[in-house]
Amino acid sequence: MRGLSVSRSPLRYRYQQVEAWLFEGIEQKRWRLGEKLPSIRRLCQLHQVSKATVLHALTHLEAQGWIEARPKSGYFVTYQVNPPKAVQSNNTIDAPRLATLSDLFLDIMQRSAAFDLLPSSLTLEESPGIRTLNRSIARALRQQKTQESQYYDSPAGDASLRSQLSIHQARRGWQVGCDQLCITSGTQHGLFLALMASCQRGDIVAVESPGFYGVLQLLESLGLQVIEVPSSASHGMDMEVLETMLQRWPIRACVVSPSFSTPSGALMPIDRQRRLLDLAESHDVVVIEDDIYSDTALGEIPAPLKALDTTERVILCSSFSKSLSRDLRVGWVCGGRWHQQIQQLKVVTQLANSRFLQQGIAHFMAEGGFAAHLRRQRQVLQGRRDQLITSLNDWPIQPMTLSRPLGGLSIWLELPETVNTLNAYSDALRQGIVITPGPLFSISGRYTNCLRLSFAHPWNEQRLQALAQLKTLLFE
Amino acid sequence: MRGLSVSRSPLRYRYQQVEAWLFEGIEQKRWRLGEKLPSIRRLCQLHQVSKATVLHALTHLEAQGWIEARPKSGYFVTYQVNPPKAVQSNNTIDAPRLATLSDLFLDIMQRSAAFDLLPSSLTLEESPGIRTLNRSIARALRQQKTQESQYYDSPAGDASLRSQLSIHQARRGWQVGCDQLCITSGTQHGLFLALMASCQRGDIVAVESPGFYGVLQLLESLGLQVIEVPSSASHGMDMEVLETMLQRWPIRACVVSPSFSTPSGALMPIDRQRRLLDLAESHDVVVIEDDIYSDTALGEIPAPLKALDTTERVILCSSFSKSLSRDLRVGWVCGGRWHQQIQQLKVVTQLANSRFLQQGIAHFMAEGGFAAHLRRQRQVLQGRRDQLITSLNDWPIQPMTLSRPLGGLSIWLELPETVNTLNAYSDALRQGIVITPGPLFSISGRYTNCLRLSFAHPWNEQRLQALAQLKTLLFE
Repeated sequence: MRGLSVSRSPLRYRYQQVEAWLFEGIEQKRWRLGEKLPSIRRLCQLHQVSKATVLHALTHLEAQGWIEARPKSGYFVTYQVNPPKAVQSNNTIDAPRLATLSDLFLDIMQRSAAFDLLPSSLTLEESPGIRTLNRSIARALRQQKTQESQYYDSPAGDASLRSQLSIHQARRGWQVGCDQLCITSGTQHGLFLALMASCQRGDIVAVESPGFYGVLQLLESLGLQVIEVPSSASHGMDMEVLETMLQRWPIRACVVSPSFSTPSGALMPIDRQRRLLDLAESHDVVVIEDDIYSDTALGEIPAPLKALDTTERVILCSSFSKSLSRDLRVGWVCGGRWHQQIQQLKVVTQLANSRFLQQGIAHFMAEGGFAAHLRRQRQVLQGRRDQLITSLNDWPIQPMTLSRPLGGLSIWLELPETVNTLNAYSDALRQGIVITPGPLFSISGRYTNCLRLSFAHPWNEQRLQALAQLKTLLFE
Repeated sequence: MRGLSVSRSPLRYRYQQVEAWLFEGIEQKRWRLGEKLPSIRRLCQLHQVSKATVLHALTHLEAQGWIEARPKSGYFVTYQVNPPKAVQSNNTIDAPRLATLSDLFLDIMQRSAAFDLLPSSLTLEESPGIRTLNRSIARALRQQKTQESQYYDSPAGDASLRSQLSIHQARRGWQVGCDQLCITSGTQHGLFLALMASCQRGDIVAVESPGFYGVLQLLESLGLQVIEVPSSASHGMDMEVLETMLQRWPIRACVVSPSFSTPSGALMPIDRQRRLLDLAESHDVVVIEDDIYSDTALGEIPAPLKALDTTERVILCSSFSKSLSRDLRVGWVCGGRWHQQIQQLKVVTQLANSRFLQQGIAHFMAEGGFAAHLRRQRQVLQGRRDQLITSLNDWPIQPMTLSRPLGGLSIWLELPETVNTLNAYSDALRQGIVITPGPLFSISGRYTNCLRLSFAHPWNEQRLQALAQLKTLLFE
């Protein structure tokens, strides 16, 4: 069992103060591009901190590309501040302060709109799958003896649901026993428990870049250091870069979504998955697999990375939030060697989950409702994805910079460098349009010209109109 | 925003290693009763740790009563190890190692039986309140547009439920606005968020002794230090002792249940509540009010401590788990000055709660179902409490040591000192009987001769039989 911390004020740790001081020096050209920073010993004296603290600060700056370590020489400035092509460098400089992002994150959550361009445009479209699910939950409620309301659910969660999950996973080529699963309150809750159980404060966690902002928020809240590994829209996390980083830093964990990462919907090829597990094995890294999008596959559901895991070092976290309903708040974790700790942490921090809800979902699955829902959903989503891509035909972007994912609920757009999607967020909001700007998917201020667009919702007239408004707003 | 940590392996922190080393020395009589421990400086040298670490270890030992600080003299052994009256001192010595208790805690949760002597003895007794509630939730599910399943609930939780809670609280004399409440996944989840938001690792938290084991587990998991303040079965936490402790240690927070503490069901008189707030104010202490039992009041529901809080330093945590159903997993926090942090932590660690569930409960409350349920429940519980006390008439205990609470779901029994309820736990289990032994309500190994008995369930023939078996097991 390892320990974790929570913090949100960016400068509450000493290493952050040292980091901010160094960053300011680079920004103000006290040390210019290519120049050497003061020695570690000198930095310890200057700030009255330990060597470990200084190393933390340097590692963090290096991970962001501001400096680089040269063996036996020291740390050198590598980043060219105020590059000539960008007139305004405010974003590059502001973005690493996570406070901005956390406000934005909360703002988007507040609008219940992380995945909708136009949350006011609710259609009356009915989902037969959700109807059946709701009937099934209502029946579970009716059938539950009222006396049962006086008992808590067991720590691992309802056995009937775990059994159905085991059957569902077997269909995608993953054999998992019920006793290896622990029910959670959704994927984010699972990721939280996984990180709590396997990491301790200050540990370095590798994530995909661009990657899910919910994970970035969580890592920051838990006092973990983030290192961003480039992830392509086609094949996911870059293993060459990961290997280099593993050789350089003591990375403790790696959070990855092999079956459709967000924002790009990348699907990691199996040989790359094997490479990831080999690297994890040789560097003793915990692999946390965020599997939330696997059931949105437009074709066959890919087997998870976890299916290749022979040493129990992969923790898989998933839920029904993207495949079925975001309002269920039911997910699961397969914790591998951390299973017991995860289960205990779940009990200590929130005792249990709703049994009737799990039983209702289990019944829905047992009756074939879930499989039927996924079949229908697949066609619907494919249509929405294609309609979105067609709608972007007249946008001034290279088709090359547009991903056409095989799963997930969104596409990732690289717009011309002059576009600033963070500024566009506020402008769009004034017109009732909610976008998820690129910088949200990184802590290093990258992706100001990028945008995630979701195809989770039907493209009715209002949403198409909003898309047109957004085009005007971004390019005119 | 402050930071917190999680740990369960008792010796993972340096202060714990120092503490264990000192404890062992006391146990092995390297330093005997009344003798002086090595100086702080000497301990720093011996263990190669900082002064703060040594002070942590000493404070912890002192809080457990093993040593005491004498001004300008040092630390002295105060605890008499192997006191003559106890033949076997294993429990006294083992109990501070929380690992044992956490296993026991998980074991009890696993049996879904924290509050039932005989969980196998489910009766067919129906609860009309729960029936109505379940119908109301099922209706909320039917009425929810299926498209709504594609959106997360807002960070604070459903507005209709918060509004009903505000009305319900006003009836007991507490005016609280909807915007001051944040919905959680139960009381334990609320306590977790409250501690995460207001404390940081290593902080000292005062709790009632005996007090709820779930809180003790949580504090241990978060790397917080526990200090136990004696709490009487009639009036709750002792303010004289608390004041002394506040003068001696930098206590950061105090977790307290003024409206019926567990295990004893104590109700804290209003003047004592005022004294608590005065002390909290003058020592800058966060007061975390665990209000879970207030709705089980056998008479009028007492106003919460939070109603007296003029400086927003009380965080109230509650839920429907004891009053309505443990399977809802719906609670609330009124976070005072920590409201924003608590809400953000909730979102970062689990995004949201189920909206339909909240709406179903809100409707049940709006229609008067909750108030009617509480009225019925009041009579039922009073009957069960009295029947339990009557059943204990022939137990060889002093009537004085038996509390007759005005709320809560249990009584606290002090048995003859020869009885060991921790041993009885395993013996009872072999007969299918689940008890909650006294040592679970402390981390200091106290209360081996104590027992919490619940009256939450109907006293049918099987439970009365189990009570008789338990008597034999304990006293013969």
